[in-house]
Amino acid sequence: MSNPQQDHPIITLTTDFGGRDPYVAAMKGVLRNLCPRAEIMDLTHDIAPGNRVEAALFLEGAMPYFPSWTLHVAVVDPGVGTERRAVAVLAGGQVFIGPDNGLITLFLRRHALDGAWSITNQTFMSDAVCPTFHGRDVFAVSAARVAMGASLAAAGPRITDLELLPVPEPCQDADGVLHGEILHFDRFGNAITSIERKHLDPDRAVCVEAGGMRIDTVSQTYGYADAGTPLALFGSADRLEIAVAQGNAQQRLALNLGMPVRVRPRGEGRELS
Amino acid sequence: MSNPQQDHPIITLTTDFGGRDPYVAAMKGVLRNLCPRAEIMDLTHDIAPGNRVEAALFLEGAMPYFPSWTLHVAVVDPGVGTERRAVAVLAGGQVFIGPDNGLITLFLRRHALDGAWSITNQTFMSDAVCPTFHGRDVFAVSAARVAMGASLAAAGPRITDLELLPVPEPCQDADGVLHGEILHFDRFGNAITSIERKHLDPDRAVCVEAGGMRIDTVSQTYGYADAGTPLALFGSADRLEIAVAQGNAQQRLALNLGMPVRVRPRGEGRELS
Amino acid sequence: MSNPQQDHPIITLTTDFGGRDPYVAAMKGVLRNLCPRAEIMDLTHDIAPGNRVEAALFLEGAMPYFPSWTLHVAVVDPGVGTERRAVAVLAGGQVFIGPDNGLITLFLRRHALDGAWSITNQTFMSDAVCPTFHGRDVFAVSAARVAMGASLAAAGPRITDLELLPVPEPCQDADGVLHGEILHFDRFGNAITSIERKHLDPDRAVCVEAGGMRIDTVSQTYGYADAGTPLALFGSADRLEIAVAQGNAQQRLALNLGMPVRVRPRGEGRELS
Repeated sequence: MSNPQQDHPIITLTTDFGGRDPYVAAMKGVLRNLCPRAEIMDLTHDIAPGNRVEAALFLEGAMPYFPSWTLHVAVVDPGVGTERRAVAVLAGGQVFIGPDNGLITLFLRRHALDGAWSITNQTFMSDAVCPTFHGRDVFAVSAARVAMGASLAAAGPRITDLELLPVPEPCQDADGVLHGEILHFDRFGNAITSIERKHLDPDRAVCVEAGGMRIDTVSQTYGYADAGTPLALFGSADRLEIAVAQGNAQQRLALNLGMPVRVRPRGEGRELS
Repeated sequence: MSNPQQDHPIITLTTDFGGRDPYVAAMKGVLRNLCPRAEIMDLTHDIAPGNRVEAALFLEGAMPYFPSWTLHVAVVDPGVGTERRAVAVLAGGQVFIGPDNGLITLFLRRHALDGAWSITNQTFMSDAVCPTFHGRDVFAVSAARVAMGASLAAAGPRITDLELLPVPEPCQDADGVLHGEILHFDRFGNAITSIERKHLDPDRAVCVEAGGMRIDTVSQTYGYADAGTPLALFGSADRLEIAVAQGNAQQRLALNLGMPVRVRPRGEGRELS
Repeated sequence: MSNPQQDHPIITLTTDFGGRDPYVAAMKGVLRNLCPRAEIMDLTHDIAPGNRVEAALFLEGAMPYFPSWTLHVAVVDPGVGTERRAVAVLAGGQVFIGPDNGLITLFLRRHALDGAWSITNQTFMSDAVCPTFHGRDVFAVSAARVAMGASLAAAGPRITDLELLPVPEPCQDADGVLHGEILHFDRFGNAITSIERKHLDPDRAVCVEAGGMRIDTVSQTYGYADAGTPLALFGSADRLEIAVAQGNAQQRLALNLGMPVRVRPRGEGRELS
């Protein structure tokens, strides 16, 4: 399994490194040195420090839009330098390179896994690997090697036990109520939940409950409601969101991570008003 | 009107999407997929959420420096998915692609408008347009089409009623006093005002009043004054700024958005001390 | 001394300009206009406003990883528009272009200086230089000229008195105790110190004291210790760090910039327990 895009390889970067420190820059230098023809694209460096669920949601929403065989280097890695493995994963036509700590969990729920390899080959690493910075000394080097034409299988042994995050799937109770939870708040204060479009029957009217509040319908977008109105809608990555028109739902509705969200069928006598 | 820079198109991105969410990354993926030879340049993703005046000042200060026919995709779009139009605008040799909500207002005060088009052509959009994310499904696709050679006129009907922001122009009273206001604070705490260099006679000595304070002269730069000294000067986009030497004017002088700023002629008996 | 990488010049940007304002974007526009074939790479724009030590640590950790003759434009410049010089510096195979205010101090402690030039040639500047924005009107223009093939010596007179920051080197007392201090906190709250790997004998067991606390060993990485354990270790730029396993050392240990850090030899009867 080697890169068919060797003439114009694309390497993306997703980290929690922020901008006060040279960690991202050092990775870019290594990539540019080892693979002069790669296009290096920043996706983000502002994942909350160590927040693997946020990174997993990010990759779920970002990776599908890239050309096939884009190399996505993602580093949110609190276990750097311990026994956790470094991995290369081919799934849904995209390549993930990073720590084996579940960052690709949510992408894998939507896209077929074609293979995963543990990175053990010394030529996929710097000569001296700093135990606190595998982003620079393992993942960037590995991405450059693959970009230059190395096969994923050359990275090391194939594995079938990728680490996954325990992000809960929603469940449905006997009354047809779907139980999920808040996984993340976006920059606008919208609450992104574990409930996805595929979990709901599009022909069935529902209401949404969250934070002690009931929202009577699922809207199409933010802009039609009066300012301050709580809204439920499906966001651009097909996840149910709780929003407030022209406002910040997290603050206005006092929502928290992990808070339960319920979707209840309406009509046909089922509605509990 | 089609892109004369098809061999090396440049597409810039200006948004309020921040870095915790995959919105910018998804746009980049779409652009890279549809126009492999475009250069994609981040301008910023840190416009304050929904702040169209901040975005308009940003574009005023950024767009003029790019090669002609650079495609500037700007998305600060609280009305996404409502009837507000998507537009492509050719002005001052630059192309703006984004929502029709006034982001280009201040740039248009300084540069000639050559044409504006409402984006209605389905080939300028994704097959399924998510009502909450036109950045990905309309603006990125439109920019890629233009980058690949499509004419702006192919986007849809020409329009002459672009939406503009009601950013106030300063006005002069009978005593020759110019009345403006604070529009924005930059990262250093400098207050950027509605008063531009063109509004003042360069040969006339003036003093500046803001926040209950009077500054007796317009300085050339920040560095010559003693630390803590309040300063008035023209910033790099030719707007009058209130600053504090080696300090943060917003905090030190307790300034607020919308606060009045007056420029008063000095000398010739006109000075009111 | 002219750029041997004219076919594929790389220009990096390191600033404290943040993302609310068009300063970075204007620099990119100028660079793209003057040198269409340069690759422009963001290193960071999030250096704390005016913090030259943070910028110097950033460049120390970032610059060495780039291909030789990469042009690093760095702008943290509280003295913009005063008499402080603009400089081009060739050191360790890398080129620095920016204000002469010490940003390259720490890089120069590790890499040989090959030459420094004061930028005075008018062709290395815009026709009209705004006194508050040399990033756009001097440094970006100079970088583009060098990228296009101009010699560094064409920038202006060679100088031998580069401004340096007074960042303290650690010193060793009569008991063999190394005295350093905290220079910076990274995004994870790790305290980066003035003590470097080269200052310690790798064969000697030591303990580390900081913030009234004693850490009995120097660890290899963050991940092996129990959550909340204070750690001392060498970070990826070979500087001693004070960290907390799975936590933020700055907050947990109430550390501050400038706080003393001591490294004390252990064993051989020297330990003071």
